[in-house]
Amino acid sequence: MRFDIITCQPNLLESPFSHSILKRAQQKGLVEIHIHDLRKYAVNKHGQIDDYAFGGGAGMVMMIEPIDACISELKAERAYDALIYMTPDGQTLNQRIVNQFSLMQNVIILCGHYKGVDERVRQHFITHEISIGDYVLSGGELGAAVLADAIIRILPGVLNDETSALTDSFQDGLLAPPVYTRPAEYKGMKVPDILMSGDTPKIEQWRFEQAVERTKQRRPDLLGEE
Amino acid sequence: MRFDIITCQPNLLESPFSHSILKRAQQKGLVEIHIHDLRKYAVNKHGQIDDYAFGGGAGMVMMIEPIDACISELKAERAYDALIYMTPDGQTLNQRIVNQFSLMQNVIILCGHYKGVDERVRQHFITHEISIGDYVLSGGELGAAVLADAIIRILPGVLNDETSALTDSFQDGLLAPPVYTRPAEYKGMKVPDILMSGDTPKIEQWRFEQAVERTKQRRPDLLGEE
Repeated sequence: MRFDIITCQPNLLESPFSHSILKRAQQKGLVEIHIHDLRKYAVNKHGQIDDYAFGGGAGMVMMIEPIDACISELKAERAYDALIYMTPDGQTLNQRIVNQFSLMQNVIILCGHYKGVDERVRQHFITHEISIGDYVLSGGELGAAVLADAIIRILPGVLNDETSALTDSFQDGLLAPPVYTRPAEYKGMKVPDILMSGDTPKIEQWRFEQAVERTKQRRPDLLGEE
Repeated sequence: MRFDIITCQPNLLESPFSHSILKRAQQKGLVEIHIHDLRKYAVNKHGQIDDYAFGGGAGMVMMIEPIDACISELKAERAYDALIYMTPDGQTLNQRIVNQFSLMQNVIILCGHYKGVDERVRQHFITHEISIGDYVLSGGELGAAVLADAIIRILPGVLNDETSALTDSFQDGLLAPPVYTRPAEYKGMKVPDILMSGDTPKIEQWRFEQAVERTKQRRPDLLGEE
């Protein structure tokens, strides 16, 4: 899968893609991530990519022309399945949407900044508007990193142990059950006996009950019991 | 405000805090961000910080001992208002929660990895469990960066233009209205006439109507009209 990420802050995206799982996914050839600096497509030699909002008010707006130039260059090279804009008023990301994106081959992710992009970019170029949650960030870069990370980790071959992703929260509509590791007792705090029993069917039953209970308590909406 | 972020992947967090708004906030002395490498508190000289889950199953679990050691060291130095664990089954982050955190002085953020942390850490040390959304990431680091970014950008003095944050999506319960900038016409795509009128009261009225309309269309839940 190929990601082309368009940003006016390419430095922000350096470390999230240079370490750990995302680095290994690229080394294995499972993923290509290309970061494009919007300033290379600036409208003048001062590197201008934003301007004041028509109608007045605080905050700068990202101009249509540099974005159009960058997108057009990419589209001339290959077909894209989605042109995603990261914005707080987009569709709220969830695991179902992540799963859908993970089936795509080539996607462009446009990171907003300042007050966002000129509305005409959204109307004419963007196919998916995605928000990672109901809060505002200083730019779309962290959102793009979150979206890419969520997608990449579920691509076949990326995680060493594939059964691990299938028992994550949300993949089966339940939160994950509690987990414990050594030592069995630490400063008087003990691991539940059942987990030390070696009785695998009973342990699996306990985990399922704990997952259901935790979901009921914390996220009844996931069970349709709001 | 001071952030102490505990992680087993400190490299992942380099760039998000080294550029743009978060860098300036630190340079202005408004924010301190300290990244703590959990491996320095490992239980042995091999740097071990995780182990297999009791009861079996795929995925590693972060051990209680290194986390306890790191937290205890920090708590001996100052009082903390919150000890936050980033986890997909935590409380879903929203702008209201961000606003509440922004009033705190010192917070610890613990990043989960693998299958998460030993449940006893959550029961005995953690005060707030936060999820940035209903999807699973390869670790808590991006979540911690998202949480810190959302908080820091609304701290007084961080944004150059403070009125900008107040008109963000969610701060007033509405999504933001569309924005436009130059050129007024681009490849036949025009900016709405009203924004070129210079009639500020009418423009403000239009923006309000657009914000309400966009919120009705995209997020009726924010208006209590689901």
